[in-house]
Amino acid sequence: MGVIMRLVIIGGGVAGSEAALAARKYDRTAEIYLIQKQNYPQYSPCGLPYALANDITNFNDLIIFPKEFYEKQGIKILLGTEVKEIMPSDNYILLENNEKIEYDSLILSTGSYSTKLNIDGIDKKGVFFIKNLDETKELSEYINESKKAIVIGFGIIALEGAYALKKRGLDVTIIARKSRPMRQSLDADMGEIVIEYLKQKGINLILGKEISKIEGDEKAKGIIIDNKFYPSDIILIATGVNSNTSLAVESGIEVNGGIITNNNLQTSVKNIYACGDCASVTDFFTGKLIPSNLGTNAVRQGKVAGINSVGGDLKFDPVINATITEVFDLKIGAFGFTEDQLIEKGIEYAKAKYKGKSKAEYYPGAKDIFVKLLSNLEGKIIGVQIIGEEGVFARTLAMAFAVQKGMTLEELSKSENCYCPPVSPTIDPLQICAELLLKRLKK
Amino acid sequence: MGVIMRLVIIGGGVAGSEAALAARKYDRTAEIYLIQKQNYPQYSPCGLPYALANDITNFNDLIIFPKEFYEKQGIKILLGTEVKEIMPSDNYILLENNEKIEYDSLILSTGSYSTKLNIDGIDKKGVFFIKNLDETKELSEYINESKKAIVIGFGIIALEGAYALKKRGLDVTIIARKSRPMRQSLDADMGEIVIEYLKQKGINLILGKEISKIEGDEKAKGIIIDNKFYPSDIILIATGVNSNTSLAVESGIEVNGGIITNNNLQTSVKNIYACGDCASVTDFFTGKLIPSNLGTNAVRQGKVAGINSVGGDLKFDPVINATITEVFDLKIGAFGFTEDQLIEKGIEYAKAKYKGKSKAEYYPGAKDIFVKLLSNLEGKIIGVQIIGEEGVFARTLAMAFAVQKGMTLEELSKSENCYCPPVSPTIDPLQICAELLLKRLKK
Repeated sequence: MGVIMRLVIIGGGVAGSEAALAARKYDRTAEIYLIQKQNYPQYSPCGLPYALANDITNFNDLIIFPKEFYEKQGIKILLGTEVKEIMPSDNYILLENNEKIEYDSLILSTGSYSTKLNIDGIDKKGVFFIKNLDETKELSEYINESKKAIVIGFGIIALEGAYALKKRGLDVTIIARKSRPMRQSLDADMGEIVIEYLKQKGINLILGKEISKIEGDEKAKGIIIDNKFYPSDIILIATGVNSNTSLAVESGIEVNGGIITNNNLQTSVKNIYACGDCASVTDFFTGKLIPSNLGTNAVRQGKVAGINSVGGDLKFDPVINATITEVFDLKIGAFGFTEDQLIEKGIEYAKAKYKGKSKAEYYPGAKDIFVKLLSNLEGKIIGVQIIGEEGVFARTLAMAFAVQKGMTLEELSKSENCYCPPVSPTIDPLQICAELLLKRLKK
Repeated sequence: MGVIMRLVIIGGGVAGSEAALAARKYDRTAEIYLIQKQNYPQYSPCGLPYALANDITNFNDLIIFPKEFYEKQGIKILLGTEVKEIMPSDNYILLENNEKIEYDSLILSTGSYSTKLNIDGIDKKGVFFIKNLDETKELSEYINESKKAIVIGFGIIALEGAYALKKRGLDVTIIARKSRPMRQSLDADMGEIVIEYLKQKGINLILGKEISKIEGDEKAKGIIIDNKFYPSDIILIATGVNSNTSLAVESGIEVNGGIITNNNLQTSVKNIYACGDCASVTDFFTGKLIPSNLGTNAVRQGKVAGINSVGGDLKFDPVINATITEVFDLKIGAFGFTEDQLIEKGIEYAKAKYKGKSKAEYYPGAKDIFVKLLSNLEGKIIGVQIIGEEGVFARTLAMAFAVQKGMTLEELSKSENCYCPPVSPTIDPLQICAELLLKRLKK
């Protein structure tokens, strides 16, 4: 008989739950603790804006498995439980109630938190975040007494949040410091397509502006920009997220914005692993360690950390951070460098953009699809941006696989696609865009 | 000044037209003849069943460019013109009217023809093929006086034809020798999904049976199977296609079912190229030379043949023959070996099938998607079959790119996908299927 080991997982979100389940599959005897600050087990955070929009009927649908599911697998799931301290040298953690739990392996899957704006009035009623289930539910109820909403930010969550509020019948205004949506993922020209679309859908935009204050007594009543008052019942803050690293920092685990991990997802302490939004992992394009903040990568990291923490030896490959979202009917898929990022890094590049159709040109209902590709001067694909109402997932997934396998522009331009008039065009917009870019490179 | 060369292209379909246009772009001065048997320039043959279904409003929408488009590019397009003979030793061709056209380079893009069944009554009125525009238009008009249709065959064209006839309000029966649809692409278990779907849509199926006779006087009235009469106004024959190789055979060009080509798409005669349905090209999986019969590959071959015929030096890579179709709302994507083909070839293999969802499981309207993967014992992916009402194109395209780049099962199982609840699930069915298959391989 082998020794029964004990694995403790701090954080029962996407990464932590996957880690617990993967560890359980790998080691049928290990004692596994899954400690969750919130009062419910893992849910889908990416589904929150769509539950807010009422596209998903019930917030509870987002909870993947009930508590009992974990318990049946012999996972000791502690809900509503906070961890106060980690003691890496003595291999135990302390809960808020000072209970001590010893571990052989520890996994940190503490997630991320919404960046709080440092402005006057941020704590008023009517100011919301949609990072977790409780606060999104709360906003969803608050909508019933509201008419106007302001969304602060212009990233994915801001776009999804604005969509949800508009879908719920509110008058919605996006206010952003930057004049470009999803600027970590999209160039200005592609962002312009999104901006035009949002305008068509009746979303108001105030761009390149910072709010100076949230007005109101107990309840928010609006915001101030350049001394002008903009009334609003709801202020949704969606200006980004930060990794939850405080427990790691306090216990001396190395952190660089996220918790630093190697390709086994081990932290600087050998028997402590990190996964999900709190962990820094290697970026495929830059080679740098940064948090991924994507659900896909949280699951993938959770699996690797879970299995490795109970004796496995999986490698976690660099992430391309393939991102996709849907706002109204528009889908936006992107990964890799933007032009700004390349310019800032001094990397020489070439680019091409192509507007094609999602299916055969003559087919009724074929939708426009915009494809932009960036490459380095050797023809390596280093940026992919795709926008349209149809066929965006197909091309983002296909390019994600292709780029992970190192497909070059030349290979893409010569590649075999698949075609049927009601489904796709004879030559894919991706291939045409690759060929355009290739011609520029050859000049 | 260089010498002006003359390129003659026999066959103005998908491959031939692409060859003409690609040659023109590459060589602005070459004299280019495009000789087309039919009375109109290139149209989309893959669109014919959907025009028959009235999904595409007008048959003429399928004609990609008008005659004048070619003429403006300085391409001498001869419509309604047949070629009688090729004289490779003297570098000229003879038209039906005995006109002689000399060439420096010749491209054969003579396409394919419907396999004719050798049964009594095949020439009666009411017996149709839907290989070309004229005959499909004719069928479309004939539908107006008809109530019942029988489709003979169970491949892609038979399925698409049956769909179109049903959509036009006819009572449709598929009769096939084989009891499995698309047997070049689908295994029996995946075919069963298609069969169930067709039944649900009200298509009658008589499988494993051969018709012995088409009954009727001038007009077909029905067919005989096992001495039983099945009445029908329309008999659509869709039992496959064969390459048009007679001109090549008669002039001594090497043929093996299709016209044999090397990776420059040269035939056995140095200045004669072949492309499209009439040409045999290398199959990615078997390494054998066979016709591809896909629109995608016709275009890709046309480009290579066109450019090489006027002095270029492009290589044509082996084809995976990535196939996709839509029948009602069902999409079917597939390429690589089926189990039967592997057994016949004595190749050891492993398989896995997975039924997932097209988007997040909890998302309203998420559709079932069936994924089947076959691999050899080293984990190389050698067969892909995907069926569902949503997300099939995405996964077929992604796998087409992945397999062309040699992605292994292990890489697929670890790959990064892209996820957003209304668009796609956190872990892709492809990845789950790859992992299932990997586990079987490791046992």
